[in-house]
Amino acid sequence: MSSELISKLFLKHFNNPHLAELTDSAQLDIRNSKLAYTTDSYVVDPIFFPGGNIGKLAICGTINDLCVSGARPLYLSVGFILEEGFPIKDLEEIVRSMALEAQNAGVEIVCGDTKVVNRGKCDKIFINTSGIGVIDNKHNDLNRGKNIQPGDKIIVNGYLGDHGIAVLGAREELNFKTLIDSDCASLNSLISDILNTSNQIRFMRDITRGGLSTILCEIVDEKEFGIEINELAIPVRDEVKGVCELLGFDPLYIANEGKVLIVAGSEDADKIMSVLKRQPYGIHSEIIGEIVEDHHGKVILNTEIGGRRIIDKLTGEQLPRIC
Amino acid sequence: MSSELISKLFLKHFNNPHLAELTDSAQLDIRNSKLAYTTDSYVVDPIFFPGGNIGKLAICGTINDLCVSGARPLYLSVGFILEEGFPIKDLEEIVRSMALEAQNAGVEIVCGDTKVVNRGKCDKIFINTSGIGVIDNKHNDLNRGKNIQPGDKIIVNGYLGDHGIAVLGAREELNFKTLIDSDCASLNSLISDILNTSNQIRFMRDITRGGLSTILCEIVDEKEFGIEINELAIPVRDEVKGVCELLGFDPLYIANEGKVLIVAGSEDADKIMSVLKRQPYGIHSEIIGEIVEDHHGKVILNTEIGGRRIIDKLTGEQLPRIC
Repeated sequence: MSSELISKLFLKHFNNPHLAELTDSAQLDIRNSKLAYTTDSYVVDPIFFPGGNIGKLAICGTINDLCVSGARPLYLSVGFILEEGFPIKDLEEIVRSMALEAQNAGVEIVCGDTKVVNRGKCDKIFINTSGIGVIDNKHNDLNRGKNIQPGDKIIVNGYLGDHGIAVLGAREELNFKTLIDSDCASLNSLISDILNTSNQIRFMRDITRGGLSTILCEIVDEKEFGIEINELAIPVRDEVKGVCELLGFDPLYIANEGKVLIVAGSEDADKIMSVLKRQPYGIHSEIIGEIVEDHHGKVILNTEIGGRRIIDKLTGEQLPRIC
Repeated sequence: MSSELISKLFLKHFNNPHLAELTDSAQLDIRNSKLAYTTDSYVVDPIFFPGGNIGKLAICGTINDLCVSGARPLYLSVGFILEEGFPIKDLEEIVRSMALEAQNAGVEIVCGDTKVVNRGKCDKIFINTSGIGVIDNKHNDLNRGKNIQPGDKIIVNGYLGDHGIAVLGAREELNFKTLIDSDCASLNSLISDILNTSNQIRFMRDITRGGLSTILCEIVDEKEFGIEINELAIPVRDEVKGVCELLGFDPLYIANEGKVLIVAGSEDADKIMSVLKRQPYGIHSEIIGEIVEDHHGKVILNTEIGGRRIIDKLTGEQLPRIC
């Protein structure tokens, strides 16, 4: 429904060349600089979860949207909407972790705004962040994946599904607890490393809402190529698999907040993998599949038990308020 | 309380040279360009009111924050938080007026995000906008008012208090109706005109939350000058005065959404006034007072009946969810 809203309503009225790209961030030419610009609102429930909180998420999410576009994130804005009576102690913990995450990522929070609404008119705290980064000319086409071609390798930088399961496990109404931490992390250092290593990076996207499957489907959508991925190669923790089985979820559709999908020329795949594995957020990187000439517009999963099945986009919202 | 929150909590953790200025927008040097960057969240209640709606407000507000910094607004981001079940018809009306306002102001909406939360977890719709503009070098110091000096004239571009009273009158629980429309408007054309007319513009600020009084107090705060304003010269509609009297409000503290306060060298005041009066949003402009050498750090109002009183900052939130 959200996707339908965006395409029908927003594109109809806000239509312009920047927005119509529907990428992670808009690419803007301002005088002689090429900038990336992006925004996201965060409404995650609960606001504190293992491995992070809504504030850390709001910083990492926007940083990642910028750097998968090939941009070096520089500046962030932060807008808070607070429910009257929200504990200052909690606000301070959130703000502290935002400041820490921004500092670690080398990004400055330069403008902000706070609104307070009456009790019951919002759920504790919502945070919007927007961000600006600069794009080197050679990384211009990363966001659109124009240069993707058959033979390219598909890489992910580690275990999938941790964020979604961590948040789910932190919900009081659900009767299970997990030891899984959210993977919530800023990937700008990791991404800058691989961009410096290889000029064969064709496309990147952070694997958030909708999970791996949704992005793979978007990559092949109306394209003259297909994708083949190997279930055995996809890194998913046993505990995440277990919870998913229990609750009827598919880990390939679960949101992540520190994972990027990379499409890269096969000749550089090993070089990229070795750089990734030296990065703290890339230790468990895997090549999970490749772009193929067959079955145009389709994503095929080679299953663990030797079968093949078509992967579809996420239909309906599997996990609401996961970010 | 909001002001205390900002100064204590946010400045403590997010402290950096850009944010610490506490101006309408951050000024950023990116490569060879100077940019202005700002954000605001909008939670106005009700979302539709005479003269506008939450969407138009979200566009005008961010455009005005950029142009009072001397920037030419270029690009906006929009983040929606929607309550489940929010009528698509209302959303479309809001989106349509945002698109129209942006188009009229010559600004592009280039990136966006939508989150939906369960019914009862937010109040219909909240909108965050952020914006980017470019600053000409000669307008560098506008935001900080560093060049303000005794003798400078203080100008406002029309009737004060319309927005606050229009929104208040639209609240169902209040037992009055007004014929007042919100003054909600994008001021970039008006501001660009006066910046092209005079190089004696020392300072501008949009007169939003806290009203005229709050901004005047901020201008003199810890400064070696004072301000004197003349009640008779301040443009306030009779109906706004009437409603304020009835409800115990002071129009000088009521929020506006299409008003700017301008401090300008007295030698250019007439020239600026004649340019303002030719602009649709400047017809009722008035010189309301001046910067004086006396009573450092204080704002004095010469009242209609010949008295003098000190103007204080707004304490407490006079009108919640007015923007």
